[in-house]
Amino acid sequence: MSHPSSHPRRIGVFDSGFGGLTVLEAMLRQLPAAEFLYLGDTARLPYGAKSRETVARYAVSSAEFLLAQGAEYLVIACNTASALALDAIRAAVPVPVLGVVETGANAAQTHSRSGDVMVIATAATVESHAYLAACRERKLRAIEKACPLLVPLVEEGWIDHPVTREVLNIYFSELLDQARVAALEPDTLLLGCTHYPLLRRQIENALPRSIRVIDSAEVTAAQVAASVRVPGGGATPPAPHFFATDSPEKFRRLGSRFLGQPIHHVELIDLESSTPG
Amino acid sequence: MSHPSSHPRRIGVFDSGFGGLTVLEAMLRQLPAAEFLYLGDTARLPYGAKSRETVARYAVSSAEFLLAQGAEYLVIACNTASALALDAIRAAVPVPVLGVVETGANAAQTHSRSGDVMVIATAATVESHAYLAACRERKLRAIEKACPLLVPLVEEGWIDHPVTREVLNIYFSELLDQARVAALEPDTLLLGCTHYPLLRRQIENALPRSIRVIDSAEVTAAQVAASVRVPGGGATPPAPHFFATDSPEKFRRLGSRFLGQPIHHVELIDLESSTPG
Repeated sequence: MSHPSSHPRRIGVFDSGFGGLTVLEAMLRQLPAAEFLYLGDTARLPYGAKSRETVARYAVSSAEFLLAQGAEYLVIACNTASALALDAIRAAVPVPVLGVVETGANAAQTHSRSGDVMVIATAATVESHAYLAACRERKLRAIEKACPLLVPLVEEGWIDHPVTREVLNIYFSELLDQARVAALEPDTLLLGCTHYPLLRRQIENALPRSIRVIDSAEVTAAQVAASVRVPGGGATPPAPHFFATDSPEKFRRLGSRFLGQPIHHVELIDLESSTPG
Repeated sequence: MSHPSSHPRRIGVFDSGFGGLTVLEAMLRQLPAAEFLYLGDTARLPYGAKSRETVARYAVSSAEFLLAQGAEYLVIACNTASALALDAIRAAVPVPVLGVVETGANAAQTHSRSGDVMVIATAATVESHAYLAACRERKLRAIEKACPLLVPLVEEGWIDHPVTREVLNIYFSELLDQARVAALEPDTLLLGCTHYPLLRRQIENALPRSIRVIDSAEVTAAQVAASVRVPGGGATPPAPHFFATDSPEKFRRLGSRFLGQPIHHVELIDLESSTPG
């Protein structure tokens, strides 16, 4: 039986903000024939500090919006929403839904030889223990660490910066201690936040060479490309369509850094007044 | 003519999150006879990244909620909401409204001898230039600097910490350069964010001794105490009543640090479904 959306032309990408643009950037390279809709729920970001109920409510309304725009496949490019709301989204929409937590855990399973994995993420993602659960399902042992300063450092633009190196050294020294206490021999670090790919080189430099860094943007794009067959058709697909729930100007300005190319048009939408109740 | 709320018993305090608890803490000391209602709109924090329209909509609904709970005087203990939404709140509610931007600027006017003032705040507060405008109205010259890493450092608990000292040194070195370029001789630093009082000692240590630090929590409480006369009446007022729009447990846990005393009960409320539309 062929599900109509196993050959999607329109892929909806959802994040609470701009970080998911690192996933979109990788998909634009790996799925050149697809058409993309990107929704950043910027009025309600960050999801990272919110409860499961609130995140699920916000994520479901965002997913429903993308479906109403014609999305035939959804990529949840937001770790918090993938961690806290994937089941709720899958229950709410009739198209395939892929989340960055599972794609990251899949890649860890493929690459780790020791079976011992470290995960860094925001506080809310860690508190959900979604990566721990996803790793356990794949017979991996995992430890997690919340790194709440990394997102603001990226947003401050302090990428190749002494403070960022110091913060990474502190975080990784604590994480490697945690691994020793747990008697693990980690060979893999999973970047459990879509902001972190921008710090990939600094993260690699702060870690022993024996540890491989898995970038959720790259591996998510690879798994979307492997699981769908976008029908070819000669014509170049239209450029991605961007939607945001707050300040299109800010989305264009900050988002371009995450996407690695200029964003020209962003459509402002209101998800709240369309929510029933 | 005596406005009924010049003798308020119930003072409503509003912030997007926990930071405003530093203002409440100072008011509990300075207005021992008053009864306080505190609302943290934690489901929608931080306001700092949001547009004027969104902040005004959120702040007005929060103010209306506090009024419905019997507040007779409102303190907007949120710099972003004071900067972007004070007029909208005043237009929406029939009680006196005091915001931390004006109380901070008033204190700077009282204390600065050179008339040259520096302000540090979140990106959104600085982009609004609300402090600049409030200082100009008081014939003060002012420069502003966004310090987006300070809130996450406070929330990480890195108060007396080498990374925080390094970040403060970088920020203040840039700010003092900015003052030199503008040919100012600042003698006053205004803390334009309610998280910053927790870093007050570290901030004072990172600055030349000639610069006086003005803490918005203390000066706001002092100005509320000076402008209202809470009717005495023998009985001790009830403990503050706390409302939050997300995770009461997290509010209790994090909030206690800002308030400097345990928070036992937090009532979860939903502002969104009560919003018309």
